[in-house]
Amino acid sequence: MTTIKDSVHDHIQVDGVARDLLDTPALQRLRNIRQLGTVSLVYPSANHTRFEHSLGVYHLACEALEQLGVDGTQAERVHAAALLHDVGHGPFSHNLESLTHRRTGRYHDDVHDVLSDGAVGEVLREHDLEPDAVANLVAGEGRFGQLVSGELDVDRMDYLVRDAHHTGVPYGTIDHGRLVRELTFTDEELVLDEGNVQAAESLLVARALMNPTVYSHSVARISKAMLRRAAERLLESPENATDGEALQRMDDHDLIVALRSCEATSTFSRRLDQRDLYKRAVWAEIDDVPGGIIEADHEEIRSFEREIAASADVDPECVILDVPGRPSMTESTTRVLVNGDVRQLGQQSPLVDALRGAQYSQWRLGVYSPPEMRDRIGRAAVDVLGLDIEGALVREVRNGMDTTLDQFLE
Amino acid sequence: MTTIKDSVHDHIQVDGVARDLLDTPALQRLRNIRQLGTVSLVYPSANHTRFEHSLGVYHLACEALEQLGVDGTQAERVHAAALLHDVGHGPFSHNLESLTHRRTGRYHDDVHDVLSDGAVGEVLREHDLEPDAVANLVAGEGRFGQLVSGELDVDRMDYLVRDAHHTGVPYGTIDHGRLVRELTFTDEELVLDEGNVQAAESLLVARALMNPTVYSHSVARISKAMLRRAAERLLESPENATDGEALQRMDDHDLIVALRSCEATSTFSRRLDQRDLYKRAVWAEIDDVPGGIIEADHEEIRSFEREIAASADVDPECVILDVPGRPSMTESTTRVLVNGDVRQLGQQSPLVDALRGAQYSQWRLGVYSPPEMRDRIGRAAVDVLGLDIEGALVREVRNGMDTTLDQFLE
Amino acid sequence: MTTIKDSVHDHIQVDGVARDLLDTPALQRLRNIRQLGTVSLVYPSANHTRFEHSLGVYHLACEALEQLGVDGTQAERVHAAALLHDVGHGPFSHNLESLTHRRTGRYHDDVHDVLSDGAVGEVLREHDLEPDAVANLVAGEGRFGQLVSGELDVDRMDYLVRDAHHTGVPYGTIDHGRLVRELTFTDEELVLDEGNVQAAESLLVARALMNPTVYSHSVARISKAMLRRAAERLLESPENATDGEALQRMDDHDLIVALRSCEATSTFSRRLDQRDLYKRAVWAEIDDVPGGIIEADHEEIRSFEREIAASADVDPECVILDVPGRPSMTESTTRVLVNGDVRQLGQQSPLVDALRGAQYSQWRLGVYSPPEMRDRIGRAAVDVLGLDIEGALVREVRNGMDTTLDQFLE
Amino acid sequence: MTTIKDSVHDHIQVDGVARDLLDTPALQRLRNIRQLGTVSLVYPSANHTRFEHSLGVYHLACEALEQLGVDGTQAERVHAAALLHDVGHGPFSHNLESLTHRRTGRYHDDVHDVLSDGAVGEVLREHDLEPDAVANLVAGEGRFGQLVSGELDVDRMDYLVRDAHHTGVPYGTIDHGRLVRELTFTDEELVLDEGNVQAAESLLVARALMNPTVYSHSVARISKAMLRRAAERLLESPENATDGEALQRMDDHDLIVALRSCEATSTFSRRLDQRDLYKRAVWAEIDDVPGGIIEADHEEIRSFEREIAASADVDPECVILDVPGRPSMTESTTRVLVNGDVRQLGQQSPLVDALRGAQYSQWRLGVYSPPEMRDRIGRAAVDVLGLDIEGALVREVRNGMDTTLDQFLE
Repeated sequence: MTTIKDSVHDHIQVDGVARDLLDTPALQRLRNIRQLGTVSLVYPSANHTRFEHSLGVYHLACEALEQLGVDGTQAERVHAAALLHDVGHGPFSHNLESLTHRRTGRYHDDVHDVLSDGAVGEVLREHDLEPDAVANLVAGEGRFGQLVSGELDVDRMDYLVRDAHHTGVPYGTIDHGRLVRELTFTDEELVLDEGNVQAAESLLVARALMNPTVYSHSVARISKAMLRRAAERLLESPENATDGEALQRMDDHDLIVALRSCEATSTFSRRLDQRDLYKRAVWAEIDDVPGGIIEADHEEIRSFEREIAASADVDPECVILDVPGRPSMTESTTRVLVNGDVRQLGQQSPLVDALRGAQYSQWRLGVYSPPEMRDRIGRAAVDVLGLDIEGALVREVRNGMDTTLDQFLE
Repeated sequence: MTTIKDSVHDHIQVDGVARDLLDTPALQRLRNIRQLGTVSLVYPSANHTRFEHSLGVYHLACEALEQLGVDGTQAERVHAAALLHDVGHGPFSHNLESLTHRRTGRYHDDVHDVLSDGAVGEVLREHDLEPDAVANLVAGEGRFGQLVSGELDVDRMDYLVRDAHHTGVPYGTIDHGRLVRELTFTDEELVLDEGNVQAAESLLVARALMNPTVYSHSVARISKAMLRRAAERLLESPENATDGEALQRMDDHDLIVALRSCEATSTFSRRLDQRDLYKRAVWAEIDDVPGGIIEADHEEIRSFEREIAASADVDPECVILDVPGRPSMTESTTRVLVNGDVRQLGQQSPLVDALRGAQYSQWRLGVYSPPEMRDRIGRAAVDVLGLDIEGALVREVRNGMDTTLDQFLE
Repeated sequence: MTTIKDSVHDHIQVDGVARDLLDTPALQRLRNIRQLGTVSLVYPSANHTRFEHSLGVYHLACEALEQLGVDGTQAERVHAAALLHDVGHGPFSHNLESLTHRRTGRYHDDVHDVLSDGAVGEVLREHDLEPDAVANLVAGEGRFGQLVSGELDVDRMDYLVRDAHHTGVPYGTIDHGRLVRELTFTDEELVLDEGNVQAAESLLVARALMNPTVYSHSVARISKAMLRRAAERLLESPENATDGEALQRMDDHDLIVALRSCEATSTFSRRLDQRDLYKRAVWAEIDDVPGGIIEADHEEIRSFEREIAASADVDPECVILDVPGRPSMTESTTRVLVNGDVRQLGQQSPLVDALRGAQYSQWRLGVYSPPEMRDRIGRAAVDVLGLDIEGALVREVRNGMDTTLDQFLE
Repeated sequence: MTTIKDSVHDHIQVDGVARDLLDTPALQRLRNIRQLGTVSLVYPSANHTRFEHSLGVYHLACEALEQLGVDGTQAERVHAAALLHDVGHGPFSHNLESLTHRRTGRYHDDVHDVLSDGAVGEVLREHDLEPDAVANLVAGEGRFGQLVSGELDVDRMDYLVRDAHHTGVPYGTIDHGRLVRELTFTDEELVLDEGNVQAAESLLVARALMNPTVYSHSVARISKAMLRRAAERLLESPENATDGEALQRMDDHDLIVALRSCEATSTFSRRLDQRDLYKRAVWAEIDDVPGGIIEADHEEIRSFEREIAASADVDPECVILDVPGRPSMTESTTRVLVNGDVRQLGQQSPLVDALRGAQYSQWRLGVYSPPEMRDRIGRAAVDVLGLDIEGALVREVRNGMDTTLDQFLE
């Protein structure tokens, strides 16, 4: 057994299949992938990696299984899935996921190939675990898939606490000790035991507060968009042999150095390295954006960008259009026991609706550009995209009130 | 200048009028009043006092004023109000407030008398501060009253963080450092600067989660109701000379020993000392309770209790009816700047409505009794109070499912 | 099983005999005894109690036993001893221990009587545990007594961390998670496994730094001496029926109110309540104090006090002479495994000697008096006690340099 | 003014020259240099960077200067020096310092060139600061140099707390809030005010405990030695154009990718990436090592390595000899005020001598090798180096007792 000291969970004991998986290259690679990608450009302490997060998820999975009275092969399968759940990540974690998905057809939780091959596959088979069964758990399938990837999964419990610890933002401090302890199964469904409505709500609330403050902070979104643009250019560059699969297998070091070395990406690379970032030329609320734009696919977005650039008479590289998906309307299906009945948290808690509403009010379309072209590009974008009014941010920028936006911390 | 080490804010520097107020009996008395009254019967680490909380509020007030550029007499007046804002508390803080208010006509934030008299009055006048002006600030009046007692006051910022630190419940961890830093004045109104909607929401959310988990935990409510009943008996006891005013001036030690010494209260006192508490015989949601009962005054409540006892054929001391006030519908009037306009948080944030809804769904009427009479008294109470259905808790109790309720921690 | 939320160890699960002991009056009484007595007059957040500490010690004992592979009756006996180890404390924990020992002949860890009688005895016997065997463990006897009361006991591991958490002084932050995990038995001796020399040193160092900063802070010593004096007067007072046994059974509330109510102790009581404390008139290092004085018994100390008062022509109540015992020269017998051999930490670590030396250099004899008589009483004390030089503090006081000493925090 | 959220100091306000320095490439580069180099291979959470540490040092310097009453140009000069004190670091911080020093003649605190050139030089001159004067402060020269680099410097105060926060090892938790507050100047010397002997000791103790547990953990030393060997091979490789100066200017990404790409270093690189590290073949205490070896220079060490390899009949790349410098005998010259006199802490505190002793007892010479050759190379090394006995570790290895050494955490 190995004991590892973690800054969040203190001592983590690693045993069985997990002990053997620790030494595989696929897992060690996660030491070189930052958990929050470019968020460290906003919160300089946020340099934690997918490796320590994976250990934390494994640790919470062990506690949950012990509490649920699950052991043996079933437990080992979940242990493996918990530890391996992020090995499918490319460099900068989620930052490039839309790009690599377009090129490879896979999201990070599609790990059937990674788990079957090489050292990981060998270790799993040595422990009589079927790689595909473990990969299914990572994809959230089956009874225990909910524990690894679902509304009440230990993944979220770890990342909220860990991201709060490392950014210094206190909103992610859920009571994971209690949540893990109160999980139970009812008719094959993972539910929270009686008396835990607030504990379940706190998990949703923590995410709702961390989201705009950390994960979708405007500077994080800008730098992520710049990184994605640079990675696209890298893939397109004739001087470079990287394709989508190769990009997906890189770690942060590889990508950063590749962007520095490639002529086509050196400007973006310098800007990212020196934190000389684009600024917001437009920052529009959802009600001010025509519906078609929100549903636009990648090619259409690229076409809008070229049109805006032409209209503003600037180089197309100077315009980045960043359109988040429509806020998802999925019900919160977290299940809690209330007076002996299983209820969906969405039925029980008025907070759930409100948080969906908050998602709407926090949604923003962004157009980013070098600071000195902001005015010009902002006007062109409002025009080309048919934004209903001269959106909030454009006005702010005009009034010269954009000072707080240049701070690291909003 | 005095430097005091605090477990929450680390070093607190106390200077000027605050330094001189520290040594007054009125302030030192707060060392002997627990911040959360009987909550320590649920969370054993919650033994912090009004004294350290008062220091914390003073500390945050200093930071806020510095950030607002306020100094001189104006600042000293607020410093004094922040440090003194809780000197009007009786023993066990809020636990007996309804009782002492009935007897004295004063709530804890009515401190005009306390601030004018004795050592406190002397110190204030030595520093050229008018005691009444300071008392007005404590009551939340005037431009700076909002900072001491209002929607965005430093009182709440301190107690949420401090109560979380001492109970171990992580929901109160707001970003007080940021909130204090982002306060500003617009047209005499205290507002949060641009970009702080989430920070303001987090303050409301923290309270909404701490409320059912800590402040209104069922065991805290039961023990508070028992303490209140005992204190009433103490005031009524002919062997005891305590009146409402005297009760109000006691500290926790005085009251605990008085309850132990007085024949009429010794049973309640023993039960509280040994944590041998009443249990819930009824625990009913707001929709199951006839309107008249929610608005009942103290005498009507007492009359219901006697009726329930008679119907169940038990001693009236064995029945406690605990009816919280109707959830208040006050809008959240916290003001935030959004794109240059002052907006009320209630307009801007869908969370505010939801939290109001949550208050409704968390509201409970309780009837408490010795464990062995719970069934009988529960049935009688449903009958006497005309509860719409056989409310949730009664059913639970019948099914013998009440086990988690006997735990310290739900 | 009961789960209790603790501010230090998060969730503590209480089971078996411990669950039943929780509800005994002897244990619940500890809620009303502050862990650090008058230290809260220096560190206002230090209001934690012997109750939560007892839970913490129980929790660490459970972890240690699990790691050692001990279960069954043997484990239950240790669980009971851990939870009960402090039930012998009188009010204000150690503060009055010398006084109650003189009167009752018992120290706080002599709990044979308490454990045999009443509810505790019943619970133990119901769980087939012999009260005397548990009491022996509390006294540190036998193989597992070392775990409850010894050089490496879980008592110390809990209080260092807990006292640091509540005072805000960061020196007690040992790695208790590691220490508990690394305990092992070699030939009936509890030892720390290979590679833990620093972990063992850290325990000694933490105590060596917490000692002068917290436990023996001059203001804590002064207030403790005043409290002890007041308690002695209470026992001597004809108007009061308290004897040593009764004092020992009081909790903090009882004693505080008794001191307030008794004419003979009301002055000390008012001073303690209002933090209007005596000051140091003499503060002398060990080398400046004649040997006989250090060994003086209680009667001789009282006689010196009277002599000093007579010489200074003041009321004898105005002089308190506070002489700590000679620093104990016990070797650190903590055992650690180094390259396969059991070694005493004192042989292995040069720190141990140094910490002994530090004890010497921190030792101080104190004479305390009302501030306005400090000069006069200081000179008389130097004379009467035959202090070698005009000790450091006396000089300081003369030079008017005593400002920092009046602060809460040195 | 910019406000930055830090996981250790919460909000850091950056103003004046520091605000402008933030945006320079030299400072932004520190985001890509891990504070503790290969220590993250032992403590996976230790991924913090020189950038956030530099902000922390700047923050503490601001607090110290404010407390000392220093402002204006003098303060700005120290602010700049605090923020810039680490810009001279190469990749992996101290890990390669001996190598780059041999090649460039400069240590990391020799920053005269870096501060004069480019954007940093421009910013300094715009703020009327002489780059050389700032560089002198970084080198610890002059009255305020002590604050930036000395026995009581804010550099150490930050790194102890920060490294503890990120490794999870609790030994570095000094009371930096107090230390910074208690600094004062006496005759041009920075001293700690009266009553701070324990605060000063705690700083030394924290370092003494963090040293073997974190900074010189055997696995950190092994991986550092492997990295240094790889970097040497990189510099020697004809296929690579990197020289010492270029190496010094790299960041972690550059070096990691260069080692992966270069044929001569790919084996070491793979081992480091996959944490497939060498093990200890010898681990000898200072008394078992002939004096000449401890003083050996780089060439002699290399020659010993070749001789050991020849004697064991293995490839020279399989032997790494790691000989730390002789423990330095420098007195602790931290100055503290005791009873009005300035005293050196070394005179006042017996701990200082003891910590020097501890350094001796913790010193180890290491010989590292691939696990499967450990036995053979261990015997050869004992022979070639003339180690007095068959040192502890060799014996352990033979007995197959080396299990704990393979853990991440000792």
